[in-house]
Amino acid sequence: MLSVHKQSGDFLYQQVIDLIFQQIASGVLAPGDKLPSLRQLSNELAVSIPTVRQAYLELERQGQVIAREKSGYFIQDKRYNPLVSVDCRACKPVEVRCRNLIDQIYDAIHSPDVLPLGIANPCMALPATKTLHRTMKRVMARAEERTLGYAHTTGDLGLRRQLAYRYLNHGLSINPDQILITNGAQEALALALKSVASAGDVIAVESPAYHGLLELIESLGMLALEIETCPISGVSLDALSKALLRHNVAACMFSSSLNNPLGCVSSNEQRKELVDLLENNEIALIEDDVYGDLIYDQPRPHPAQYYSRKGLVLTCSSFSKTVAPGYRIGWLLAGNFYATAHKLKRAISCSSGLLQQMTLTDFIASGDYDRHIKRLLPVLKFNAQRMTAAVARNFPAETCISQPRGGSVIWLQLPHEVDSAKLFHQAINHNISIMPGEIFSAGRRYQNHIRLSYGHPWSEAMDQGVATLGRLVMQQLAAA
Amino acid sequence: MLSVHKQSGDFLYQQVIDLIFQQIASGVLAPGDKLPSLRQLSNELAVSIPTVRQAYLELERQGQVIAREKSGYFIQDKRYNPLVSVDCRACKPVEVRCRNLIDQIYDAIHSPDVLPLGIANPCMALPATKTLHRTMKRVMARAEERTLGYAHTTGDLGLRRQLAYRYLNHGLSINPDQILITNGAQEALALALKSVASAGDVIAVESPAYHGLLELIESLGMLALEIETCPISGVSLDALSKALLRHNVAACMFSSSLNNPLGCVSSNEQRKELVDLLENNEIALIEDDVYGDLIYDQPRPHPAQYYSRKGLVLTCSSFSKTVAPGYRIGWLLAGNFYATAHKLKRAISCSSGLLQQMTLTDFIASGDYDRHIKRLLPVLKFNAQRMTAAVARNFPAETCISQPRGGSVIWLQLPHEVDSAKLFHQAINHNISIMPGEIFSAGRRYQNHIRLSYGHPWSEAMDQGVATLGRLVMQQLAAA
Repeated sequence: MLSVHKQSGDFLYQQVIDLIFQQIASGVLAPGDKLPSLRQLSNELAVSIPTVRQAYLELERQGQVIAREKSGYFIQDKRYNPLVSVDCRACKPVEVRCRNLIDQIYDAIHSPDVLPLGIANPCMALPATKTLHRTMKRVMARAEERTLGYAHTTGDLGLRRQLAYRYLNHGLSINPDQILITNGAQEALALALKSVASAGDVIAVESPAYHGLLELIESLGMLALEIETCPISGVSLDALSKALLRHNVAACMFSSSLNNPLGCVSSNEQRKELVDLLENNEIALIEDDVYGDLIYDQPRPHPAQYYSRKGLVLTCSSFSKTVAPGYRIGWLLAGNFYATAHKLKRAISCSSGLLQQMTLTDFIASGDYDRHIKRLLPVLKFNAQRMTAAVARNFPAETCISQPRGGSVIWLQLPHEVDSAKLFHQAINHNISIMPGEIFSAGRRYQNHIRLSYGHPWSEAMDQGVATLGRLVMQQLAAA
Repeated sequence: MLSVHKQSGDFLYQQVIDLIFQQIASGVLAPGDKLPSLRQLSNELAVSIPTVRQAYLELERQGQVIAREKSGYFIQDKRYNPLVSVDCRACKPVEVRCRNLIDQIYDAIHSPDVLPLGIANPCMALPATKTLHRTMKRVMARAEERTLGYAHTTGDLGLRRQLAYRYLNHGLSINPDQILITNGAQEALALALKSVASAGDVIAVESPAYHGLLELIESLGMLALEIETCPISGVSLDALSKALLRHNVAACMFSSSLNNPLGCVSSNEQRKELVDLLENNEIALIEDDVYGDLIYDQPRPHPAQYYSRKGLVLTCSSFSKTVAPGYRIGWLLAGNFYATAHKLKRAISCSSGLLQQMTLTDFIASGDYDRHIKRLLPVLKFNAQRMTAAVARNFPAETCISQPRGGSVIWLQLPHEVDSAKLFHQAINHNISIMPGEIFSAGRRYQNHIRLSYGHPWSEAMDQGVATLGRLVMQQLAAA
């Protein structure tokens, strides 16, 4: 008979966890077994349902159990090694050179019939197609030829108002006149980087870093300096401080909301410390906040800009990860650099698509955006668990797996003999696209890493694809 | 009794013209009078209807008569001075500095209730709203969630195929893989310029030049060198040759299809000579071809790229002038610079809007695009005549007026005492937006010039607006 001790100093949910661990250790619960339902265990232990739920959530977070929608909680089929550290010592500013491989990766992404484990496309896990199309048709009917015309170079005022209102809910007081609508977050990042730095400047990035940031640094003739980043807590402020002493860093460009590919989220305290460190040194921070609304089990952290006192933080985001990448609508909160960024925007692309801006304005105002995110998040989280379980089943035991806190990708550290660029080509021959690790580094690190995306409805083909990848990795190991 | 001499050496249509000139000179025909109908004069002179039509068209081209849709041909209310030359001697490469005024101009353009004589927006003279919306809905229904996804970084293959096919019809053999879809022509120009030149380089432009080109040169830290441009025949190759000897020109950026704001079209011979001159000197030509499909009374000239032998011509165009500026879909034929331009595109904005690309693909394939242009051209030409007549009626007699061969703007040279930046502010106080001349120059020329747009359905308000502008000019003259 299981029981908890209500007078013990331990939290009740922690005692529930301990009981389940005991059962796993004693073999009562085996991999793949279903846990009792919340109600069942609540009755059995005479604790509240929320207490049991909290215990299960924590076990899920630790990767011990997985939740299957409408089925309940199951013991992980196979234990796996969580990724806990990244080797990024002694980095120096370097030129970025990773473009040829990226050409091939993009071609693969857009080939029909290729299993899309490469591209990070979270909103496609549960596309809001019907609602968006209905909204767009409503806008067309209402605004007629206005929808064909030029938007203001700063963006449609309606959308900027909605965004300002949303930021207010995240604690950030932004005026619609401080928002610049852009062609996706990538243009926002380009405008931001061009506004704060010039060719030859050193830009600090996380390591690993989103390849789009590295491509941008390369295209502007700047140098990238990789900063050690913890797969659990984000960029190392200690490593960053030391780097600032050693190198003349012009700006930092960090995926502040959620590191891509690591999937880690830094705490609000860490964000404050980061901004203080940089602003005390008069260094601009460009934050890529595209995943801010896609964090699974915790309140949305403050954008780093929330902690800015000097206006040196530039926040870039978009609807490409949450709603519709093809709309190409993003935005930039450029802080002190607004005027410069606005003039650049006008010069390099004039304005952004008006019909999409008006559609998104309605989509947010009607509450559809929030409803969509609320439905999307559990699907993504479920997919993350499926993907983790599939990798654990099929990849070599030494594989370390990131534990994404949001978004739609996991990052795998494979045995050091594995060549992930070669694996990319082998996978393409099996009609599977993946992202090889080296494109997430300016210094050709991560050649035995890959990023896998689960931003599509989970399917049998995904399971089979991961199994094929695992087999290819095993073959590389056998040949090594 | 009027008559022509069929045995005379003169063309019959020229004799018809001469007869009408005689009648104007003798006072038989007065300003505002209606000319006989084609059939009537054809009967009276015993010449064919096409001969009379040719005579009327030539008179119209000379600004002697204007055609009113469904009403016939009328003697110009008032004679005017055609603009025949531009003063642009002794130009030197200079930094561009015109942005503050442009900020105010853009704000004015987007203010509601302002008469839009500033922005060049030809397709709004007859918006294809219904057809475009119907096409977009069809695409949405057919492609569903695909319409929300990322387009390929080079653009949707369907659209690139349609564009390649259209270029083939203009004599240019282009493979879809040589086309890069961009966020409007402005991004195409930005990619092109960044691909061929660097900060500090000298870029030759026409004088006057489209302000968007000058803003781009400024944003990239380059220098602009204005080249004398004839309001009738386009950029002076003589002036350009001399400039190439004196200055180290890295590239030319010309509105090859139709100069904006002059409205002139260079001949195919001149285009060939231009390309030969530049390619012999290994200098790249970036041609802004956005008005190529909007030339009134002559076959579309070849894009300059047609004459390229070395791959140094980069052609930029878009659907913003012909169909829907708000769609932000343009393209770049980058010649030898394709790989560089493609990588830049991916780094600075990833890809362009997919739904709009798919909609335009259908719009072209169905023949709707060509039907739309065919209906739009006579409206624009009619508006040009109305605008010219309205200016002639209301502005000082010394005003010289350009004779646009296409597009949707006229360029006015006002008496030298007039300050057009001041006029811009005065006009805004009367809720009228115009483009002051100086933003079309890197060297603060054209301060007594303005550009007026007729790219909207003609209305009583347009007549009144031009009358107000004329009064403001008169007031400036009286105060001078």
